[in-house]
Amino acid sequence: VFHVTWDAQSAEKGGYEHFMIKEIYEQPKALKDTMTSRIMADNDDIILDKIKITKEDLEKINRIYVIACGTAYHAGVVGKYVIEKLARIPVEVDFASEFRYRNPIIDSNTLMIVLSQSGETADTLAALRLGKENGARVIAITNVVGSSVAREASDVLYTWAGPEIAVASTKAYTTQLVAMYMIALHFGRLNGNVTLEQYREIRDEMLKLPEKAQAILEQKETIQKFAYAHHTNKDMFYLGRGLDFAVALEGALKIKEISYVHAEAYAAGELKHGTIALIEKGIPVIALATQDELFEKTISNIKEVVSRGAHVIAFAFEGNDDIAKVSDVAVYLPKTLPILAPVLSVIPLQLLAYYTAVERGCDVDKPRNLAKSVTVE
Amino acid sequence: VFHVTWDAQSAEKGGYEHFMIKEIYEQPKALKDTMTSRIMADNDDIILDKIKITKEDLEKINRIYVIACGTAYHAGVVGKYVIEKLARIPVEVDFASEFRYRNPIIDSNTLMIVLSQSGETADTLAALRLGKENGARVIAITNVVGSSVAREASDVLYTWAGPEIAVASTKAYTTQLVAMYMIALHFGRLNGNVTLEQYREIRDEMLKLPEKAQAILEQKETIQKFAYAHHTNKDMFYLGRGLDFAVALEGALKIKEISYVHAEAYAAGELKHGTIALIEKGIPVIALATQDELFEKTISNIKEVVSRGAHVIAFAFEGNDDIAKVSDVAVYLPKTLPILAPVLSVIPLQLLAYYTAVERGCDVDKPRNLAKSVTVE
Repeated sequence: VFHVTWDAQSAEKGGYEHFMIKEIYEQPKALKDTMTSRIMADNDDIILDKIKITKEDLEKINRIYVIACGTAYHAGVVGKYVIEKLARIPVEVDFASEFRYRNPIIDSNTLMIVLSQSGETADTLAALRLGKENGARVIAITNVVGSSVAREASDVLYTWAGPEIAVASTKAYTTQLVAMYMIALHFGRLNGNVTLEQYREIRDEMLKLPEKAQAILEQKETIQKFAYAHHTNKDMFYLGRGLDFAVALEGALKIKEISYVHAEAYAAGELKHGTIALIEKGIPVIALATQDELFEKTISNIKEVVSRGAHVIAFAFEGNDDIAKVSDVAVYLPKTLPILAPVLSVIPLQLLAYYTAVERGCDVDKPRNLAKSVTVE
Repeated sequence: VFHVTWDAQSAEKGGYEHFMIKEIYEQPKALKDTMTSRIMADNDDIILDKIKITKEDLEKINRIYVIACGTAYHAGVVGKYVIEKLARIPVEVDFASEFRYRNPIIDSNTLMIVLSQSGETADTLAALRLGKENGARVIAITNVVGSSVAREASDVLYTWAGPEIAVASTKAYTTQLVAMYMIALHFGRLNGNVTLEQYREIRDEMLKLPEKAQAILEQKETIQKFAYAHHTNKDMFYLGRGLDFAVALEGALKIKEISYVHAEAYAAGELKHGTIALIEKGIPVIALATQDELFEKTISNIKEVVSRGAHVIAFAFEGNDDIAKVSDVAVYLPKTLPILAPVLSVIPLQLLAYYTAVERGCDVDKPRNLAKSVTVE
């Protein structure tokens, strides 16, 4: 007799072993859905649902706060960089749990952007309320229609990631990035910092991200091998500069959450100011080098850790073969604009966290001590 | 025959086993020297050497960047908090190695404050030059008279810490904090955000910091005991909220630098968004709870890590006996204003790093891989 076991939850996993890996693989679709009807190949308008910020509104804005917790905060770190680059408006990004208690400088010329997958994160919701009480306009980026932050914000932009079940956020993060790019482009077009030509170049590259994300997912073996070789290490470092540092933060959090590896991200230029003391023989270092202008500097940082015995896996765009000379394992990502790199470079880091957790025998979808949405303070 | 060994360097250590511990003990004097003739008990003027910023100059300033590396960056994190609180001018703090490469928004209404003990930190110097090229006024806080940042800045405020020999910075950090307080108070007085009464209260408490620092140094046994009990642990977490988080960052860096313990600081409110997954039985957690308004929130975070088996040493002001109920070891600091707490609370963390390094048999004054001043990029 042959027994077939079946339950509703495993069916929902659609053949995947865990929700997390299913959601990692759903990213090409989630990215596409989040861009659909908002940026379009044959149309130069950006249509951001109910965000009704005019050129005149934007001229009044002298400061933007991007406020979130956890993974959404890391999307905010990317957001700061891209809004400043594309719209040239000063942006400060802060943890909601810090921001709300430090009597921040807020007035009617302040714009706030809050990010929360669930839309129910307690600290983020409190920060939103604090902003509104002090006269700020608040845009919410959330994945849940009708959630508390969606209801209370002045404007809402939904990520169309679909339900995210795994505690460790993956597709919510990459779609939050896309939301941030669209807002930054919208602001840059409104205030004239982004020309039509620049807009078209970035938009066209954004529209290719889903297929490039798919290509990365199809080359998972290198990551699996690295995870298998290093899954017993209890400490790891993630390095990068600029946008690569922002992604390093998210990569380190991912592996912490589900593998209980003490991973820490460092701005590569800060290494020499202390952390390099911790680099010893055999320690895994994950290095990101996707930013053309910072490439040589990052290569130099990789050499420093390699010379102290670190085992380095490095990520760069196709064509940057120099990373293979300085690292133990080189992984090449499909070429895109440096500013868009986070959407692609985070995917192998999600896979690294996932395969490490599996090797370590951890409960991937429900890591110890963690809840999916933190609805208490 | 009885041989006496003697060399010039040990003589300079004045009887201390290492430069680092000598410099930790020099802090009461360094703090006093840095305040002398600048803030005075019988005079309501703040005299900041050659900083000639007028009320009119300050009115034009719409943004302050505080830029530094390593320990000085951590003094900058405190600086951001106190300038925003006392002068209500938006402040952004950034790593010099990140700031200089991200095309920051700088114009003639921007003020920059750069911190560097040596005055020769390559990335900080490059950031200063970038600021000046773009029309910003730049204040340098440095410990070395005639150093490059002192020569090139628009205004200079010296920390009178005396020569710092140990690679791990201690007295430079606490005197940088005092410099930041004096600048914040000066700006707050100039733009009317600090009343004379408020100024006098803070000044009078600042002038008492040297004797309170001395009192902490005289109670080092609790710290020694904790260091002894936990010196074999390879991972540690430092927690705090607000200014306590800023100090946690510095405490974690100190123990990384000289003990090679993988310590990491976390904004306590962010714990639940991932890092709490790493808390397991016996892991040492250093918790700071000096901020009255955040005290209950921090107590609640301490309880969370204790319930997962962490071994907690907690720091609070005298009188806050509640921390003894939730932590394994409670350390009480002499009471001062919450805003000034970092100057005192960092001292036991310096001692913890020092005694841990000694127990682990590390080369305290010259940790592996590190240089005193990072004069290359």
